[in-house]
This record gives sequence, C-alpha cells and structure tokens, in this order.
Amino acid sequence: MRTYDIIKKKRDGEELSTEEINYFVENYTNGQIPDYQIAALFMAIYFNKMNKRETLDLTKAMINSGDSVDLSEIKGIKVDKHSTGGVGDTTTLILGPMVAACGVPFVKMSGRGLGHTGGTLDKLESIKGFKVELTTHEFLNNSNNINISLCSQTANITPADKKFYSLRDVTATVESLPLIASSIMSKKLAIGSDAIILDIKVGSGAFMKNIDDAIKLAEEMVDIGIGYGRETIALITNMDEPLGKAIGNALEVKEAIETLKGKGPEDLYELCLQLGTRLLLLAKKVKSEKEARLLLEEVIYSGAAYKKLIELVKYQGGDISYIKNPRLLPKANYIIEVKSEKEGYVKSLNAEEIGKSTLTLGAGRVTMDSIIDLSAGIVLNKKVDDKVCIGETLAYVHSNDINKGKEVEESIKNSYIIGSKNKEGKKLIYGLVTKNGVELY
Amino acid sequence: MRTYDIIKKKRDGEELSTEEINYFVENYTNGQIPDYQIAALFMAIYFNKMNKRETLDLTKAMINSGDSVDLSEIKGIKVDKHSTGGVGDTTTLILGPMVAACGVPFVKMSGRGLGHTGGTLDKLESIKGFKVELTTHEFLNNSNNINISLCSQTANITPADKKFYSLRDVTATVESLPLIASSIMSKKLAIGSDAIILDIKVGSGAFMKNIDDAIKLAEEMVDIGIGYGRETIALITNMDEPLGKAIGNALEVKEAIETLKGKGPEDLYELCLQLGTRLLLLAKKVKSEKEARLLLEEVIYSGAAYKKLIELVKYQGGDISYIKNPRLLPKANYIIEVKSEKEGYVKSLNAEEIGKSTLTLGAGRVTMDSIIDLSAGIVLNKKVDDKVCIGETLAYVHSNDINKGKEVEESIKNSYIIGSKNKEGKKLIYGLVTKNGVELY
Repeated sequence: MRTYDIIKKKRDGEELSTEEINYFVENYTNGQIPDYQIAALFMAIYFNKMNKRETLDLTKAMINSGDSVDLSEIKGIKVDKHSTGGVGDTTTLILGPMVAACGVPFVKMSGRGLGHTGGTLDKLESIKGFKVELTTHEFLNNSNNINISLCSQTANITPADKKFYSLRDVTATVESLPLIASSIMSKKLAIGSDAIILDIKVGSGAFMKNIDDAIKLAEEMVDIGIGYGRETIALITNMDEPLGKAIGNALEVKEAIETLKGKGPEDLYELCLQLGTRLLLLAKKVKSEKEARLLLEEVIYSGAAYKKLIELVKYQGGDISYIKNPRLLPKANYIIEVKSEKEGYVKSLNAEEIGKSTLTLGAGRVTMDSIIDLSAGIVLNKKVDDKVCIGETLAYVHSNDINKGKEVEESIKNSYIIGSKNKEGKKLIYGLVTKNGVELY
Repeated sequence: MRTYDIIKKKRDGEELSTEEINYFVENYTNGQIPDYQIAALFMAIYFNKMNKRETLDLTKAMINSGDSVDLSEIKGIKVDKHSTGGVGDTTTLILGPMVAACGVPFVKMSGRGLGHTGGTLDKLESIKGFKVELTTHEFLNNSNNINISLCSQTANITPADKKFYSLRDVTATVESLPLIASSIMSKKLAIGSDAIILDIKVGSGAFMKNIDDAIKLAEEMVDIGIGYGRETIALITNMDEPLGKAIGNALEVKEAIETLKGKGPEDLYELCLQLGTRLLLLAKKVKSEKEARLLLEEVIYSGAAYKKLIELVKYQGGDISYIKNPRLLPKANYIIEVKSEKEGYVKSLNAEEIGKSTLTLGAGRVTMDSIIDLSAGIVLNKKVDDKVCIGETLAYVHSNDINKGKEVEESIKNSYIIGSKNKEGKKLIYGLVTKNGVELY
C-alpha cells in the first residue's frame, strides 16, 4: 500500500477502504509517513469529505492507535458528557454532581482548555490540592464509591489524534466535519462509558457559527458513537452569549457552587437540567423527562448535589473548605467595573470577544504551554435582553494587571450591543439529535 | 504574513495576492516554510485552481527564485521549442538543425527524461564525446556561430520549481493545470528566447489524455508566455501511438539522422515541418506558411539541415563519425522480432505501454538516479492503419538482457490492437493555440 495512492484516491473523490484508513493512521502515528503527505491528504478530505463508514473507520483507527480505558468494573450504566467548547461553560462541575447524586455514575476524562474556551481541569485546579491526575485504579474506585470521577486523559489515549491535530492546526485543515467529529469521538470512545451526551455549542463563542453546521457535526458525532456501539445523543445549544455569568477558572468554580446550591444563573442551571434529564433517561434511571427533571431538582434543593461536589473534591485530594467558603478561591488584585454609556436593552453580547478578553487577562491558554491565571476573568452583570441604564454596571473585570484590566474594560464595552428590545426571546436549546434524527425545538 | 492564512485563503476559494505568492515561493525555496504547509496549499490549489494573474505571478516568482539566462548577446530572433513529453519524440534533434539551417537561432536548454517519455540530452549522449553541459559563454557563442545550441539547464534555474516538483510528486498534486503550466513555463522563460512554440502532446502516451485538457493546458501556458512578454504559441499533437518508429536513445538519434536526410518516418517529418513553419513565422524569417514550408523542405533536400546537425555535434565536442556512420552508435546485444499472430489492420498502438516497455529495457529513467541503457529500445515496423499479416514483424526489441527482451516482446504484442480497418484516418495535429484563441484542425 502506498500513501501516494491513498491521497490520490481521496483527491479524486473515491471512498477509502478500512485497510487504507488503518494504514495511514498507524503509519503516521509511528512516524513512517511524513507530515507533508498527511497534510495533502487532510486537505483532500477537507474538499471531498468522508462518508459515514470512512469517518467511523478513522475514529476506530485513532482509538486503536493508543490505549482504551475499560470501565466495566464500574457498576451501572456509566454516562459521560462532552461540550464542543464555549465561553463560561461550567456545566460539567454542576451536571456531574447532579447526575451522580441521582445515583448514575458520571465518569469523565477531560482535556485542557485551549483558546477562548475554558477547560474543566483548569477550573478544578482552583481548588487547593485537587488532583486531576488519577491512576486508572483511583478513577474506577472513586466512580464505584461516589458515582463521580473527573480526571485528565492518560498520556497514551489516541496518540494519532494528537499528531493529527497539531498538523491540522498549521495546515488550515481543522475545519473539516469528518476530521473534527472523529477527533472528538475517538477521545470520548477510548474511555468506555455506556452513554454519551454531546453538547454542541453554536454561536459567536463556539466553533460552529451557525445551526446548520452544528446539526451536521452533531449528526456525524452521533453516527460515530452509535456505530461504535455506544448510546449517543446531542443537544444543540446557544453560545451567542457566554453561559452563566462567570468566565474564568476560580470564578466559574464559585458559580458552580452557587448553582449547586440553587442560586446560580438561570440559563446555566436550565442547561444542566436539560442535559441531566437526557442522561438519566439514557442511564434508565427514570422513565420520563418529567420524572428526570423532578429528580434533578430534588438533588439540588435537598443539597445532595452540593454534597456530591464536596465528596468529589475530598476523594480527589482537594481542600473542601474551598467549597464551603468560596472566598478562599484565588482572587484577583483588581476588580474593574465596566459601566454602560448607553441606555436600552442588551441586544447582543459577543461571546467570542468576551472569551478573547479572558485570554488577554491570562485566564486561558494561548498555546498548550501557557500558564493560566486562575483568579482572572469576567463576571457579567447584564446579559442579552436585560435592561440597562447609563452608568449601570455591565460586567466586572477581575485582573492582576491593571493595564490589561483597563484594556479589557474597553473591549467588553464594545462586546455589548445596546439598543431597542429584541422582538424574539433568546433560545437556550435549539434541538436534539439522536440516532432517529433531528428534532428542532 | 502567515503561511497558514495563505493556505486558508486558497482553501476558501479566494485569490492570492502577488505578495502572498512571492512570500510562499521565496520562503519555501529558502527553507523557511515546511513541506507540510506547501503540501496542503498545493492540494487547495488542486481543488480551487488559480486564475490567470495568480498563475503568471507564480511563474514569475519561480523564475525569480533562481538565475535567468540573458540571450541578448545572440543576434536575431531566438526561438525555442518545448514538448510536454511523448514516446519516441525525437523532434528537437530534427527541428533544431532544420530551423538553424534556415538562419534562425534555435536555442534550447533541456531537462533529462523521466518516466516513459525520453529526454533530448540522454539521446545526444549516445554520440561519443557530445557535451551537454555548456558554460553560458559557450552556449551564447555557439548560438551566434552556428544558430544552434542544445544544453542542460544550469544548476540554479528555478530552484523553487525543483523543490515544488519533488513535493508534488509524492503528494498527488502533480495534476493541477496552474501548477503544471507554471512549472514548465518558469523553466522556459528563465531562458531568454524571444519566441516559444509548445508541442502539447495528447493521447495514451502523453500526460494529457484528452484534447479538452490539452487545450486548457495550452491556453494556460500561452497566457503565461504572452503575460511575460514572449511570443508564445502551442500546437496540440497526437500521442496516441509513438511518434516516428524508433523509441530509445541511440535508436532515436539514428532516426533523426535519417529524417534529416529526407528518409525519416512520415509523421515525425511532418510534425517537424509544422513546428518549423510556426517558428520561421514567429522569427519573421518568412511571410507565409507556404514560404516557410518550402524553405524547410529545401534545407532537408539540399542537405543543409543534416550538415547543421554535424556542425552542432562538432561544436559540442561530439564525434561526428557517429553521425556520418550511425552504425557506430551504441548497439544492443539482442534484437528480437515481435511477430503478429493476427491478420488485419493496426487499429491502435498504446504509446504509454510502448513507453513503459522501453523503461523495462532500461532505456529510460524510473527515478532521477537511474542509469540509462542508451542502446536499448524498440523500433516499430507497423503503425496505426498499417496492414498486417500473420507472422509479419510488428516491431523489433533491442535489448541487452534476453529475458527482459522476451518480456517486452509479449507486452508489445499486447500493445497492438489488430482488427478491421479504422473508418477515420488518424490525425497528427489537432489544433493551434495562440493569444488570439484556439483553432481546431
């Protein structure tokens, strides 16, 4: 088999065989195929795409390039959630304890955040002592004992994907549906959960800028999951404005704690209820959406979900006083109020711009080697559809560098478009994608 | 400027600016841009093409990547010819002396042959002592003295093209019109001839398999030449069967000598007359096609063209007794007759298969490092439309390896399709492409 022929075949719009896909994944991973041939192949895939079978085979080959994590020791139907990345997306820290408190094992291995969207592991590291690197034994043990475990991926999960991604990143071949879908799903499926919910973000702050593209991505990913024998569904959710109010690591942990106490922002809480409902159904814990929602609300109001977070922190070596007293979390030296110069309603709030502002503050990674300022970030006081008066606070900038804080103050002011009232209310969830098709809300 | 942005722009179907094209050609040539980025860019160009302006800019940037050869010291209107490569294409060795004998300077720097199409320099090296590497001074001097000079490209002509071609060859991005056209034309235009005729071969033995593609390539190349300020035209010619009868280096030299003596194969001689006619017109040596043809026929029948070949060989250090007595040329140990097992007419004769057979015999290069057997080759006894009886000789295989000779005997037998008489006669020339458009014959 020659790599040249594989490139030519895809260039000419033909379907690659399972053997051909295995060949290039295996031999690129082990260094036998040079970067330039895979770069040409990926650009050919960008143009000529891959069909369902090819994309599934690519995903399998990427999984087989490294280790898989067998979760069969964990009792019950294990669930996992993946978000395609948004701004202020603290969902995992709330959804995980909620679902676990309902008696469903929530097991998740996460990556680090990159670019303007944050990562769960970074947020958890705001809690003193919290250990994100667990051995497989610890991971399985914690899941069995307290129904929840959140840790980093071990080194040898999908090494092919790591090499592929680095190459795609510098050759303008990131934006290819089969390559995106197989990249995400290979990492998910290498961890042996039984059911997966995908939170496909769409809007200014997300990778997918329009609903049609988001649906296509959701379909590709659901197809892969189902094809691999895992229950997989996807929700298409709004990322035009940031989710919740806090953006930044420690700030989001604080917001998660508040939400678990029933005092969080409405949109963030509602998204957790919606995702949780689907997970409880997938785990066969409940028989209806209504029953699921009631159970989830109960674990919030009874304090069971909050207690689950404390258990999680304790099991992973974290200092639980940080949860009980969030004032202990890292704090920035300066808090700058961003005041409105206009009166009216917030028409839109550009999530991507807000995400980039948190990068300026040092709250996110520009490259994989960046060191994160856990205390920095932004807390929104006004969101889309809120009424605003002149001089009212739009947001708070938390910064350790006064100059950067001032710079961000300006850009946040520009991220708020204030004008007349929007005619239509904003939507949190656009639709659901399952193996049976797309259901738009 | 970032290479990533250039790739993305072309991927998204946008036009690259002159600066962007200069940037990637310059920085790839000097090693600043890695192979994988250019591989991705070329695949994007494969899909989204380049317009006239971009292709001309690419050609210019490639020319500027190395040295140009100034021919202004040579008196008169200097002409050059380029063939896109065919099987048994001995044209240069005949056309050059013919045109030079008419008083028009024919100056050509050639590359080596690669794959199933032969190269002029290899053929010339069948003549003992013939020096294909000339200094610029020798090249200019010979051209001024005898109106003809045939030599190899100096090392630093279009280094960008050399790097590009090596990369395209392993990334399935050879078959892109703007990349092919700019590659060929950059090499031609770096040598400062005043007028260029392109012989665009089409058919089984050529790179272009159908006339539409050949016309497109011809148009691209003529546009580049004209855009660069050089008189450029193209003939689209038949390469379904080999040109002439001889295929192989020494065998083709012998055939060229015979043709210059007026005893060559009809198709080969006619093509030289047609190309020569155009060159004499471009050089303003004659006023009409008729006048050109008469002059060219005269230099054949007077022996002036043949004498010009002897002069050329003498000026470039070759032993002229090889021309006067072609039996001195390298000879193979075995000559195997390929006999027909059928009776009828030759319906077709696959030039590509014949070309590949000469590769098997060692007469051509498989890689740039291959050492060529100058004596090996094939001489056709029957060509398309010829009548054949059972037991009659179709061709002669000249080989130094009896086993390979036998192997080729079989494959040549299979290259001949013998059946009923073709209804339509074969065409040698399909059309002419000039700055004024396409004229089909």
